[in-house]
Amino acid sequence: MNDEYQEKLDIKNRLEKYYQEQSIKNGLSGMEKIVAYTPLEFQPRAMRRDLVVAQLDYGEILSMIANRQTFTIVSGLNPSSGLHLGHKVLFDMLLELQKLGGEVYIPISDDESCVDGKVDSLADGTKNAREKIIPALQKMGFDPTKTHYLIDTEQKNLYKFALEISRHVNMPELNRLFGKEAVSNPGQVFYRGCVQLAVILAPQLSGSKHTLVPVGIDQHPYILLARDVAKKMGMIPPSELVLRFFPSLSDPEKKMSKSSPEGALFLDDSLETIKRKINRAFTGAVSSLGDHLRLGGIPEACSVFALQQAFNSDDFEVKNLYDRYVKGELMMSELKETTANLLIKVII
Amino acid sequence: MNDEYQEKLDIKNRLEKYYQEQSIKNGLSGMEKIVAYTPLEFQPRAMRRDLVVAQLDYGEILSMIANRQTFTIVSGLNPSSGLHLGHKVLFDMLLELQKLGGEVYIPISDDESCVDGKVDSLADGTKNAREKIIPALQKMGFDPTKTHYLIDTEQKNLYKFALEISRHVNMPELNRLFGKEAVSNPGQVFYRGCVQLAVILAPQLSGSKHTLVPVGIDQHPYILLARDVAKKMGMIPPSELVLRFFPSLSDPEKKMSKSSPEGALFLDDSLETIKRKINRAFTGAVSSLGDHLRLGGIPEACSVFALQQAFNSDDFEVKNLYDRYVKGELMMSELKETTANLLIKVII
Repeated sequence: MNDEYQEKLDIKNRLEKYYQEQSIKNGLSGMEKIVAYTPLEFQPRAMRRDLVVAQLDYGEILSMIANRQTFTIVSGLNPSSGLHLGHKVLFDMLLELQKLGGEVYIPISDDESCVDGKVDSLADGTKNAREKIIPALQKMGFDPTKTHYLIDTEQKNLYKFALEISRHVNMPELNRLFGKEAVSNPGQVFYRGCVQLAVILAPQLSGSKHTLVPVGIDQHPYILLARDVAKKMGMIPPSELVLRFFPSLSDPEKKMSKSSPEGALFLDDSLETIKRKINRAFTGAVSSLGDHLRLGGIPEACSVFALQQAFNSDDFEVKNLYDRYVKGELMMSELKETTANLLIKVII
Repeated sequence: MNDEYQEKLDIKNRLEKYYQEQSIKNGLSGMEKIVAYTPLEFQPRAMRRDLVVAQLDYGEILSMIANRQTFTIVSGLNPSSGLHLGHKVLFDMLLELQKLGGEVYIPISDDESCVDGKVDSLADGTKNAREKIIPALQKMGFDPTKTHYLIDTEQKNLYKFALEISRHVNMPELNRLFGKEAVSNPGQVFYRGCVQLAVILAPQLSGSKHTLVPVGIDQHPYILLARDVAKKMGMIPPSELVLRFFPSLSDPEKKMSKSSPEGALFLDDSLETIKRKINRAFTGAVSSLGDHLRLGGIPEACSVFALQQAFNSDDFEVKNLYDRYVKGELMMSELKETTANLLIKVII
């Protein structure tokens, strides 16, 4: 055996175990049946590629898709940085779901950026939302008649609805769901316990019915709370799709994030930057060529393969890369070059 | 001795002790020096009548009054009920302070009414503020060019400022200051920890400097927090005047409040209601006439005398009633009749 290979295998196993444990702990349902019974044309790419790891009540949404009914999608981001590819995985899925009948609401939580200290001032977050995030989102191809870009602090009635919601949430519940550190100042408490729920439930106030909220697993407590509060307020509990964390280029067990910029690919990175970052990225192949040919590689532990999985629209090509990767037939130089070329198309 | 007399004496002593202990516990300063060195024409009636029991940095405001400078006053109410005389004591003082140079901000906290469950819905609180409270306040004689009636949820920038403030407040501090029960849902946490501070500090954002906040002792934690946050944000800590609780008609140790309507006199009570409520009110005189003549009465334990103290503008007359009360020369029938007549003028 090769120690380096074993390390990469451990990464794959830890990631699998992590999502299994999270799903069980949080009472989430798996994707197996959904994927098995959903015609391919109703499956967004992220679902076909195993990037969606769990769900709650997605069946409701699926029947609306099958019946060509309109449903609501709510999913957004906090405007503390520019958009990176981790965001794009989500928004690509929203685009596909919009084509399947989704009216898309994209909340941009400048309030969250502020209370979590991710921006110097609230005004910085609001400005970033208005001048960077929204224009970047508008270029992604959403149908403007079915897409709402909503900056939290610019919505007059959001805080009012959040105040109403607050009567249905209590502090012990909040501390338990998020952990005390995530609700350590009153702004975080109000954002996590009320405002974010108001964002999720607000479309129902203007007549929408079933709502789907695609999230990362770290956002799952919001959905639990929103479902709980919806029941108490006579509203419909939102459905959930849980996406994998999109991995950092430098560590497949870390989330791509602006806090380590070398591990992230931003939508405004230059061609040279993209190439440089991908060349330095962590892969699932061992360094010794002989061992790679003999043992094969581990695509599940590869930050470069993750980019193929998320952004290459050709299912066959991705399958082919995967098979050759596992057998040790795919050289990392080839994978990196192909992926850089793919991303240049995706980003630039 | 007479048991009834002893009971009333105990009430007087407990009330005195309560304010002494609260002042010490909360690091408040007494009123003795302020009252001793302030010319009578600069003293609002509540101050001359010992209804103001403590202060913080009131000296700052006093020098502005003496120098004919403009200062800011912030004090309001939550709109869960109509106005009663407990509110009027406060607003009468604001009126006098306005004549001494105060620009008056009256926040009406419909958000507080909502998060504390004092109204059925936020909209009820907002409606009550707009349709009942503000019109009633406008009749009180404030100078419209120097008075701002502000409904919390109708102020676009208040929540934004509250979000900024949240970064300077932490949960353990909040739990300690208010007690866990008063911050048991996320709306209460945000209101108590941020919004109310934003209300107090907001006038400084548009150029005002020294701010005076007259409050009841139960509101003191807000001032402590606001002073703390002001320092952290490079703003001026607000000054404070602490008013006695205005007593319920039925129990001088309870606060006049809409929750026991027979103990409260509302500004829209009818002549008959006023007379009835005053006739049933708790007094500081014992029931046996012989004992009253012999022992005298205790005006400090009398809910009817409290009305004279607060609303009779004639200092001499109030002093005279007090002296006769203590000596047992004042009959309760006379006191009640005089007070009913006074209040009919004040209210109707």
